[in-house]
Amino acid sequence: MAKGLVKRSEDFSKWYNELVVMADLAENSGVRGCMVIKPYGYAIWEKMQAQLDKMFKETGHQNAYFPLFVPKSLFEAEEKNAEGFAKECAVVTHYRLKTDPNNPTKLIVDPEAKLEEELVVRPTSEAIIWNTYKGWIQSYRDLPILINQWANVVRWEMRTRLFLRTAEFLWQEGHTAHETKQEALEETARMLDVYATFTKDYMAMPVVKGYKTENERFAGAEDTYCIEALMQDGKALQAGTSHFLGQNFAKAFDVKFADKEGKQEYVWATSWGVSTRLIGALIMCHSDDFGLVLPPKLAPIQVAIVPIYKGDEQLAQVNEVAFKIKEELIASGISVKYDNDDNRKPGWKFAEYEMKGVPARIAIGQRDIENGTVEVARRDTLTKEIVSRENLTAYIVNLMEEIQISLFNRNQEFVNEKTTFVDSWEAFQETIKNKGGFVSAHWDGTSETELKIKEATKATIRCIPFDQEDEDGVCVFSGNPSKRRVLFAKAY
Amino acid sequence: MAKGLVKRSEDFSKWYNELVVMADLAENSGVRGCMVIKPYGYAIWEKMQAQLDKMFKETGHQNAYFPLFVPKSLFEAEEKNAEGFAKECAVVTHYRLKTDPNNPTKLIVDPEAKLEEELVVRPTSEAIIWNTYKGWIQSYRDLPILINQWANVVRWEMRTRLFLRTAEFLWQEGHTAHETKQEALEETARMLDVYATFTKDYMAMPVVKGYKTENERFAGAEDTYCIEALMQDGKALQAGTSHFLGQNFAKAFDVKFADKEGKQEYVWATSWGVSTRLIGALIMCHSDDFGLVLPPKLAPIQVAIVPIYKGDEQLAQVNEVAFKIKEELIASGISVKYDNDDNRKPGWKFAEYEMKGVPARIAIGQRDIENGTVEVARRDTLTKEIVSRENLTAYIVNLMEEIQISLFNRNQEFVNEKTTFVDSWEAFQETIKNKGGFVSAHWDGTSETELKIKEATKATIRCIPFDQEDEDGVCVFSGNPSKRRVLFAKAY
Repeated sequence: MAKGLVKRSEDFSKWYNELVVMADLAENSGVRGCMVIKPYGYAIWEKMQAQLDKMFKETGHQNAYFPLFVPKSLFEAEEKNAEGFAKECAVVTHYRLKTDPNNPTKLIVDPEAKLEEELVVRPTSEAIIWNTYKGWIQSYRDLPILINQWANVVRWEMRTRLFLRTAEFLWQEGHTAHETKQEALEETARMLDVYATFTKDYMAMPVVKGYKTENERFAGAEDTYCIEALMQDGKALQAGTSHFLGQNFAKAFDVKFADKEGKQEYVWATSWGVSTRLIGALIMCHSDDFGLVLPPKLAPIQVAIVPIYKGDEQLAQVNEVAFKIKEELIASGISVKYDNDDNRKPGWKFAEYEMKGVPARIAIGQRDIENGTVEVARRDTLTKEIVSRENLTAYIVNLMEEIQISLFNRNQEFVNEKTTFVDSWEAFQETIKNKGGFVSAHWDGTSETELKIKEATKATIRCIPFDQEDEDGVCVFSGNPSKRRVLFAKAY
Repeated sequence: MAKGLVKRSEDFSKWYNELVVMADLAENSGVRGCMVIKPYGYAIWEKMQAQLDKMFKETGHQNAYFPLFVPKSLFEAEEKNAEGFAKECAVVTHYRLKTDPNNPTKLIVDPEAKLEEELVVRPTSEAIIWNTYKGWIQSYRDLPILINQWANVVRWEMRTRLFLRTAEFLWQEGHTAHETKQEALEETARMLDVYATFTKDYMAMPVVKGYKTENERFAGAEDTYCIEALMQDGKALQAGTSHFLGQNFAKAFDVKFADKEGKQEYVWATSWGVSTRLIGALIMCHSDDFGLVLPPKLAPIQVAIVPIYKGDEQLAQVNEVAFKIKEELIASGISVKYDNDDNRKPGWKFAEYEMKGVPARIAIGQRDIENGTVEVARRDTLTKEIVSRENLTAYIVNLMEEIQISLFNRNQEFVNEKTTFVDSWEAFQETIKNKGGFVSAHWDGTSETELKIKEATKATIRCIPFDQEDEDGVCVFSGNPSKRRVLFAKAY
């Protein structure tokens, strides 16, 4: 294990907190509940953004930007949405500071600069966006509107954790407007698919797609679709959501369109989002006691090259070879860091790139140069291999693909192993308590039962999986009849 | 001129306001002083961001993200900076809303959720960032720190205009930390050069590089470098600034490092930024009475293809040719929109793409197909040419370069023509009043004179140009001796 990093088996939660800081991803700031995303962590976010943005554009969406502030009167217009977020709202009440008359080096809020109407810092942008769409939509010709926004949002949280739950976080929020219910439902499903493809193919993280129960739905949605992933400690993590909003926001903001027959109809809506929380998921599903493990497609550095040498002459020789290798790899689309910093020993560098989750490390020493070889270490398996210089680029390109797939498969096996079908309340409790993971069980479909199960076990219904087949059974808790299984788990 | 768009010569300010809305770039929102950046406007910002981000990375910078909120006690630590921004601060005082007991459909600020310390919504991030850097810097080995942030900031403005002056705007802010004064000064100059290269090569907008006078300096800076551009109405616009912050923030936040001899020294700082204001500049320096004129390097659509046809049969023939052309152009890196919407007439489309500033428009009709030609219209000159299908792609690639350069040259000529050297107070007043533009004049170096000139003419010192040679003279206002000319203008 890495120096100073607690083992996952000892204290998973502490391991996560330490790892985020030791891998230089993020840190707590001087502002309660807000994080600083450090360059290495932000580079992962940039890679996520670039890929998601591409996928959004390929599915016909455009980016735009809407105001940070939502006037209270707009915020409260959609009642359920307002109710759901009211308790977490940062509120701007004044627009000026002035010098403290009692202490000229200090500032106070100027009581004369009180806003007539308070401004909510957006916890989500449905209200401000639907108030805007009202001006954009007159006829069916103005539809669909397919817009995404990359932005910061604020939800006041009492207990925060880096990436997983912070008062301010970065995200994207898609907000679309449609002529028909069917179209909006298709959009909701399409964007959940985009998220699932992204988490699988880029994060190497398998997810279960499904519906949320009414209790777990987004405030203001008619239906919430979600992708749920499983972390190494057996707890689930909601990785993305896509909401079918029905006509709720159109009604709250009076957004109607003239259909082809000239009839006035309310517009149908969706919204969907993923956030910097995905970085937390990425960390917790792959990393180990030595540090981060990153899938090649999202790793800011894919290959680190470390020279092994004594004295300037040997270093000069290694430099020559290493720069050539670096150049070749870069030409093949691999991102490379050659670390010939003379102040650090190779052992320190090895540990450093393990901590940072760099997928492959190449070490080059005097003997390697003589033999025309290098040593390649894989971060995911911690195995090493001697590779001929000639085949190196092809080997690395191939290795990146192999690691990407291998991480996904390892995770999929873990999820399979940690998904348990139970048919009794005893087995349910026992599994949630000792084994963790997803528990597939019959549920009677009532909120009452759902909440009682949560009270008794802390497990919630993560989703009603899309691919769950109908099956007659009885609810594990109430014994009442049930038509299908749902997925329970303790969750982040 | 375009339908409904007022002429520049009639009312430049109104022309700008109308154009921003008619070209679908942005609009005012339901939130006082905040704008909605619409997809077409945001696409320009994305192009600007992509290029600037590349240039920042090429000069060794990394992106990171710091909190939106600055606790008041941190905000006030650097006194001049705090004083400079105090009057424009949006302040968060509460973290919860609750149902209005007198009206259950309304929300009120929960008085029990008052923050112990108020949070300022960042107007700029020096305070929060230097409070963070304190934890990152111990030794000279930790320096330099070269970080940029893409973010939203809020400066409460009483009079706002889309892009040019809004309460919330998008920008990037670089914040760097250095061992020596010399290094920090070099960084300040380097980033101003990056901005000048960007405005010239991408925006096709010539700028003058120079120093700000003490009056016009960034609050908390030792020196502010700027680039100043000239708009078509003869008013100047500050397009970007780069600040040498000395050790002011290091002292305010007690950020010291151990140098190579182990001695504790304060860190040297710079910060630099450009914002969505650049979109306002881009509009005002190139566009005409028909609408936007965009330089090809920043145009979201570089070529619009419009079919001219009667009936489905002709359309099918044109479609075939047009899709081929589109494909060829895209393969050559040109962004193309083929608009075969049957609901709009060609004339409407021509006006639309003129309004949107698409650099080139290709029209294809029946006769063109027979002759193996197309008609190409240039947006900047409004000229048309018949071009053979065979040479079309090469012609368009070349045309994009030509338009890019031509726009710059046209603007440079305009700036030259609108830069007047004056040596008397009468000529100064007369030039500012009637001709506008930059006025190069001797100034005695005192703030008193600067402010009196501003009071009398509304002209401010835009900058002391870098390339201004020393020259003995007398101040146009006071008659006192002066060592060099400075650049005056009325400004946005």
